[in-house]
Amino acid sequence: MSYPSRIEKLIDLFSKFPGVGPKTASRFVFYLLRKQDSQIDEFLEAVVDLKKSVSLCKFCRNPFEPNTNQLLCSICSNPLRDKTLLCLVEKETDLMLLEKTNKYPGLYFILGSLLTPLKKKETEKIVISNLLKRLKEPLNFGIKADFKEVIIAISDTTEGQATALYLERELAPLKLKISRLGRGLPLGAEIEYADEETLSSALEGRK
Amino acid sequence: MSYPSRIEKLIDLFSKFPGVGPKTASRFVFYLLRKQDSQIDEFLEAVVDLKKSVSLCKFCRNPFEPNTNQLLCSICSNPLRDKTLLCLVEKETDLMLLEKTNKYPGLYFILGSLLTPLKKKETEKIVISNLLKRLKEPLNFGIKADFKEVIIAISDTTEGQATALYLERELAPLKLKISRLGRGLPLGAEIEYADEETLSSALEGRK
Amino acid sequence: MSYPSRIEKLIDLFSKFPGVGPKTASRFVFYLLRKQDSQIDEFLEAVVDLKKSVSLCKFCRNPFEPNTNQLLCSICSNPLRDKTLLCLVEKETDLMLLEKTNKYPGLYFILGSLLTPLKKKETEKIVISNLLKRLKEPLNFGIKADFKEVIIAISDTTEGQATALYLERELAPLKLKISRLGRGLPLGAEIEYADEETLSSALEGRK
Amino acid sequence: MSYPSRIEKLIDLFSKFPGVGPKTASRFVFYLLRKQDSQIDEFLEAVVDLKKSVSLCKFCRNPFEPNTNQLLCSICSNPLRDKTLLCLVEKETDLMLLEKTNKYPGLYFILGSLLTPLKKKETEKIVISNLLKRLKEPLNFGIKADFKEVIIAISDTTEGQATALYLERELAPLKLKISRLGRGLPLGAEIEYADEETLSSALEGRK
Repeated sequence: MSYPSRIEKLIDLFSKFPGVGPKTASRFVFYLLRKQDSQIDEFLEAVVDLKKSVSLCKFCRNPFEPNTNQLLCSICSNPLRDKTLLCLVEKETDLMLLEKTNKYPGLYFILGSLLTPLKKKETEKIVISNLLKRLKEPLNFGIKADFKEVIIAISDTTEGQATALYLERELAPLKLKISRLGRGLPLGAEIEYADEETLSSALEGRK
Repeated sequence: MSYPSRIEKLIDLFSKFPGVGPKTASRFVFYLLRKQDSQIDEFLEAVVDLKKSVSLCKFCRNPFEPNTNQLLCSICSNPLRDKTLLCLVEKETDLMLLEKTNKYPGLYFILGSLLTPLKKKETEKIVISNLLKRLKEPLNFGIKADFKEVIIAISDTTEGQATALYLERELAPLKLKISRLGRGLPLGAEIEYADEETLSSALEGRK
Repeated sequence: MSYPSRIEKLIDLFSKFPGVGPKTASRFVFYLLRKQDSQIDEFLEAVVDLKKSVSLCKFCRNPFEPNTNQLLCSICSNPLRDKTLLCLVEKETDLMLLEKTNKYPGLYFILGSLLTPLKKKETEKIVISNLLKRLKEPLNFGIKADFKEVIIAISDTTEGQATALYLERELAPLKLKISRLGRGLPLGAEIEYADEETLSSALEGRK
Repeated sequence: MSYPSRIEKLIDLFSKFPGVGPKTASRFVFYLLRKQDSQIDEFLEAVVDLKKSVSLCKFCRNPFEPNTNQLLCSICSNPLRDKTLLCLVEKETDLMLLEKTNKYPGLYFILGSLLTPLKKKETEKIVISNLLKRLKEPLNFGIKADFKEVIIAISDTTEGQATALYLERELAPLKLKISRLGRGLPLGAEIEYADEETLSSALEGRK
């Protein structure tokens, strides 16, 4: 026995959402089935509205709601931001987390995903190409900048490390300063569960 | 700093989905923002289709895709199902899990949620009323049945137990046999981590 | 760099305790090192006392503190226990858990471990032989019993199931009733996370 | 029903071991009960040996196996260690973890526990007093040192932070450089799950 085809179809689409498996997806569908028509309409409208009213910033690719003819988000168009710093992040929520620290004065660029250079996918080349264009000719994207440092602010996982190495190699010809987030003990961490590399970095970075 | 209002609006709506918090909801929204228009349209159509083509079975309230004028799902309209047994489940996926065991020959009724009698909510009364109508006058729902046993097949959590007690009391006047799922050791369980009540039941239910 | 040899030696011995890895074992050793001599002596005495004052019951092998010449534990020597039931458990704590339910009136036999018949270890044969002797000639162990049913009360894990099958085959010639703990939903379980076999058993064992 | 008194006694003593609850403690006791006398003797000897052959280093309090008249461990008596650096750790295993990084050239002092200044316990005063004596008059402990920096290498938990603040205040009059382990993203960490303080530190400590 399986669910009716329209239910299966929507379970299938929800299963592609990040972190959603078939079980969760089916709960979403039954949730929608129990909703009244007006609530479904509200949901559909919100999705339509999202695509209609939200654009990606021409420079950093962060989503924003543009006024007429506005191409840059509020960060990229802010004259007070430090135009010598570019921070590379994997995704929108990472950018938001860094903004919330109130410690970063520069600009961002959203990679869209971690890069897996071994697979030599077309996507990787496009991302690198997009990044290089922004670093070399920011004016083409409406930004008067003079980048001196690129901060690779991505996760310190195996895949993140491979991405960082790949980025460092591709950016090397530009002769910019390239930095990575500092490694150390996170807030709340116990020495006992720290690995050697983290402890080494925490020792060296003591202050 | 916060997200643009259309993004916040949809994060808000996704946060109401079962098991979804604001963090997951925001990942859903950024996932949609990265999708192409055609994929968004496919998703929107699937939701519209769901509401248009899927009905709830008149008797058990399980979702199904009806042919013209069809009011009952394939279980309720199956002449081979045992019309003396009614199994009460909390939700659609529980019904599906029980069907997959191929061990249950009777009919179902989907409560829609666990009942919290202490709150004396209107919803509880409606659910009980709907259930009693089906048990007393199944023919009004297009089913020729003569129920002898009601199986309460809901979770053995505190809330599930309260629901079961409430159902037992409300159904008592009907003089039907009322049963609950057998308690015991689940597949894979270790004696060491079993509680006393479960062990007692497992001992008594040995075979 | 490693710890001094006496520390390593004791870490090594503690690492053989059930569920203890090297990290935990080293915490145990440093815990002892910080103790005063009088506390160490108390600990050493308790271990010596344990071996000196505690015996294993001649019949069920449960540890107990015997009076002079006492060979049977308080369960095996209790005239009120039902001498037609023998319950097989893996270990002492399982016996204790079953006793705490106050639902089991019979005798026990502690296997000492789950049996892994595939390995055809000598240990397995000894356990089975010990068990058969107790079932056939309980009087040789000081017990006047007439066993009618053997209850296999072991974990429902893969290894536990293999053990149960093995026991059933070895005990078959005795023509006794052989039963296993009932399978079902444990207290607190949610339908949603139950596997099909457990649900089937819970349905069949409903009451 | 409960276990015999000698078993309960040893369960009680094992329950005081770090991280051990009554359930684990009882498994330890039954483990010992199943051991042969020779194995028990080996265990008892190892404990006796530990106390007899292992001393705490006069300066850092790290356990070591001294030769005749040796008062200092191999780290404290090593002429190549940097005698201007003192690293404060909570416990022996933390010292070992830092040694394994091969990045720390100085001396250590084991606090024995985190300090809870609010309780104004006698223990806290003794620890501080012991620490101050070592910093001011290392020669009294057989060490020719001239400490310039104290590194507080303790967990970044709430209790660890309170301990660090307390230590900083107590050490302030000595006019030494006082540092703490650097905060940052640990190896393997995902941006998404990092807190704001950790991210801030990781940004500031980028390299």
